[in-house]
Amino acid sequence: MISFRPIGYVVGMLMLALAASMLLPLLIDLIDNNTADAAAFGISALITGLSGGLLFLGCSDGRSLGLTIRQTFLLTVACWLMLPIFGALPFWIGPDAISYTDAFFEAMSGLTTTGATIYPDLDILSRGVHLWRALMQWMGGVGVIVFALAFLPMLKVGGMQLFRSEAFDTFGKILPRAAEIAGSISSIYLTLTLVCAIIYGWAGMDLFEAVVHAMTTVSTGGFASENASFGAFGAPAEYIATVFMILASLPFVRYVQLVAGSPAPLLRDSQIRSFLLVLASAVLLLTAWQVFANGQTGELAFRKALFNATSIMTGTGYASADYSAWGSFSVTVFFLIGLVGGCAGSTCCSVKIFRYQLLFSALVTQIKQLHHPAGVFRPRYEGRAVEEDVISSVMAFFVMFVLSLSGFTAILGLMGLDTVTALSGAATALANVGPGLGPEIGPASTFAGLPDQAKWVLATAMLVGRLELLSVYVLFTAAFWRG
Amino acid sequence: MISFRPIGYVVGMLMLALAASMLLPLLIDLIDNNTADAAAFGISALITGLSGGLLFLGCSDGRSLGLTIRQTFLLTVACWLMLPIFGALPFWIGPDAISYTDAFFEAMSGLTTTGATIYPDLDILSRGVHLWRALMQWMGGVGVIVFALAFLPMLKVGGMQLFRSEAFDTFGKILPRAAEIAGSISSIYLTLTLVCAIIYGWAGMDLFEAVVHAMTTVSTGGFASENASFGAFGAPAEYIATVFMILASLPFVRYVQLVAGSPAPLLRDSQIRSFLLVLASAVLLLTAWQVFANGQTGELAFRKALFNATSIMTGTGYASADYSAWGSFSVTVFFLIGLVGGCAGSTCCSVKIFRYQLLFSALVTQIKQLHHPAGVFRPRYEGRAVEEDVISSVMAFFVMFVLSLSGFTAILGLMGLDTVTALSGAATALANVGPGLGPEIGPASTFAGLPDQAKWVLATAMLVGRLELLSVYVLFTAAFWRG
Ligand SMILES: [K+]
Ligand SMILES: [K+]
Repeated sequence: MISFRPIGYVVGMLMLALAASMLLPLLIDLIDNNTADAAAFGISALITGLSGGLLFLGCSDGRSLGLTIRQTFLLTVACWLMLPIFGALPFWIGPDAISYTDAFFEAMSGLTTTGATIYPDLDILSRGVHLWRALMQWMGGVGVIVFALAFLPMLKVGGMQLFRSEAFDTFGKILPRAAEIAGSISSIYLTLTLVCAIIYGWAGMDLFEAVVHAMTTVSTGGFASENASFGAFGAPAEYIATVFMILASLPFVRYVQLVAGSPAPLLRDSQIRSFLLVLASAVLLLTAWQVFANGQTGELAFRKALFNATSIMTGTGYASADYSAWGSFSVTVFFLIGLVGGCAGSTCCSVKIFRYQLLFSALVTQIKQLHHPAGVFRPRYEGRAVEEDVISSVMAFFVMFVLSLSGFTAILGLMGLDTVTALSGAATALANVGPGLGPEIGPASTFAGLPDQAKWVLATAMLVGRLELLSVYVLFTAAFWRG
Repeated sequence: MISFRPIGYVVGMLMLALAASMLLPLLIDLIDNNTADAAAFGISALITGLSGGLLFLGCSDGRSLGLTIRQTFLLTVACWLMLPIFGALPFWIGPDAISYTDAFFEAMSGLTTTGATIYPDLDILSRGVHLWRALMQWMGGVGVIVFALAFLPMLKVGGMQLFRSEAFDTFGKILPRAAEIAGSISSIYLTLTLVCAIIYGWAGMDLFEAVVHAMTTVSTGGFASENASFGAFGAPAEYIATVFMILASLPFVRYVQLVAGSPAPLLRDSQIRSFLLVLASAVLLLTAWQVFANGQTGELAFRKALFNATSIMTGTGYASADYSAWGSFSVTVFFLIGLVGGCAGSTCCSVKIFRYQLLFSALVTQIKQLHHPAGVFRPRYEGRAVEEDVISSVMAFFVMFVLSLSGFTAILGLMGLDTVTALSGAATALANVGPGLGPEIGPASTFAGLPDQAKWVLATAMLVGRLELLSVYVLFTAAFWRG
């Protein structure tokens, strides 16, 4: 029997933090004299705080117990389920009230940094609601980095054990404990957000816009506060956002090392190089396509390709053009780079570039083995031989990802969505990107028009994708609950 | 340096056989007084025979040399490249002449048992041409079984080494050599075709129709000789075809064992059970969808679901309805079962059911390992633990399949095909199924309207898919040609 007390203790504590963070949008709405919106945040904070407090106190003896591996899995899923359940309250009870299904979808989309929205008209929302959407992405973003660095390598999910030594050994010389990792990651994250906000302000956004967009940029979340998404700001803002989306997709451990005085790991990281190489190739291809097939001119073609490709590959999901209409080659490129993703240990989701590096190395090894059956070949990563269990975890992750994508697509098709909407919806949710493809959920539209049941399926896909699939699936095995 | 003499010897011999087989359509066209068509077959036979004869004689000293692993890879690709090059001649020079691009596409589609056609109007073709299309599928079908049984397990491509012991040990007690395997497989194949033709005749087809359709059914090739494909025949023919498509998708080794007096391996084969289970589920889902979502009536809904699902899952590719228009759930199901495929050691292509069984077992093992890190778990197949190299070959195959599908889709998109045509075209070619999805290449249309370059890409995908990907890709590595 698994003891739920340590889980309840941590979840309760996080709910208290969530309730406290609701006071920020409350304050903004009070300043704006939006008393109805402010009241909604007050009530939500009260409900969340009370429930969290009770859970925290009721399980306070769980503090000293420590966590087994099974409890860690359960804790992770419980966090990413309970926080959206309560984070949805302000959307549900506010003056621009939406159904609980929509509110939960929006909250899950926020905390998983997916950024798909059900608000068909963003311009009517209060500044409090905009801040709350951005805040959830920002907290979800830092949460997932800590989760990836502190838990995943131990849990051996999806080949993340590759980074075990990195996170705890190399790194352990400076920072011995997980809580300290969380601390220094958070300072980097906060600094990056502040710098991003300042530069956005310099480029012409007002203070509120700058802060909100900095939060959704650095978390690669992608919630916009205008209907036009990034189309509302000028060309400089697009270039600035591109830089910060890329910075947010690199492994945050490298920044900690950089601050500690060693730039070498950042400069030599093969994940970063591969990521930039793939991104640059995609931008090049898309620019060429726009120029030669669609007759666009130089700078505009380059900027739109750069911004939108970076947005999709980093999984941010801002849009500054309806690339759904660029033709099927572009659509395929956008679909595929969304399934590549950024670096491990950042806020990016999706399959992630290091897995493709390992898969590629494993395939090359396989092919070598084919015609030299007597030789012994081992896949390599950054010059070192990779253990067999890492490769099989990564391959299992990839297979699971493809099968999950197929499964979610079939379920969405069963609910009446057309093929492009079902497939791109499943992909964008599972990879936490944001916009889908096609007229219904493409970059020029929102998820508002989908049937309710499809919204629950997509919210589930976001959760599954954010927690690297296996952390969720493991709870559905009988063996997990036995013994 | 690889010696090409043994390769030239075998390819030359097969070209002589190809030339000889062109005499059959020549004969039919002479009987029909189609002298122009008959002449085209005569000239093609002459060119093919002369070229093959010269190659055969020039390399006759290669006979005694035996084959290394690298030569075996090269031989396989050379066969599946040279035979379509010459098999295309009758289409190219006949009275209903088409471009060489179209002719090569049609011949490759035939020999790989894909069954995608570029003939927009089948009803105008001579009986000789119809027989030639069917004959190429029939020869390609038996060729691939022999290739799968005799070569693939030794080459360790895509986890086929799982069947090594089966093909050579259990089996070796009765039949010690590969040539004898080929012999007994061929007798089974011929018998199955004859029985199928007789029953088709009994169901109302004339002798020629019956023979041609038996050939394209048992090879799971799917070339039709009428524009209406299987819609031209009645309900009984649909049920009969379903039975024979299923029989053609089971491992042929099991039939050899059955004939030798042991039915147990056939009845206990877990591949067969899983295949039938997946097929039955798909038929059930599609029937229910047709009844409840599209308001069709019982028997018709069941028959259309049964026939078309069997046709796609076995990779035959006959159509008796435009299932592209059944709604996106159906389309997703058809797309996915086409990527499942039949059993190893049959004429089926695609990923194949045993790979999914192994992937599933490996994933379950991974998940068990996650929460019992100390335990040692091994994936199992038919009750036995599976060696690590088989699992990693299978996973590598799956990854390669998904990446190839993505790559071919992007290339087709670049050539201007819309997303559904590009994706379903790449899938149907790679899995050797036949029809794609959508208005352009769906079951109600043909591949005639595609640009020439797309036809070459699709023909390449057919070849790559038919030879289990790695057998082709290995030729593109520098290491293959070195040392
Ligand atoms: K996002
Ligand atoms: K076929």
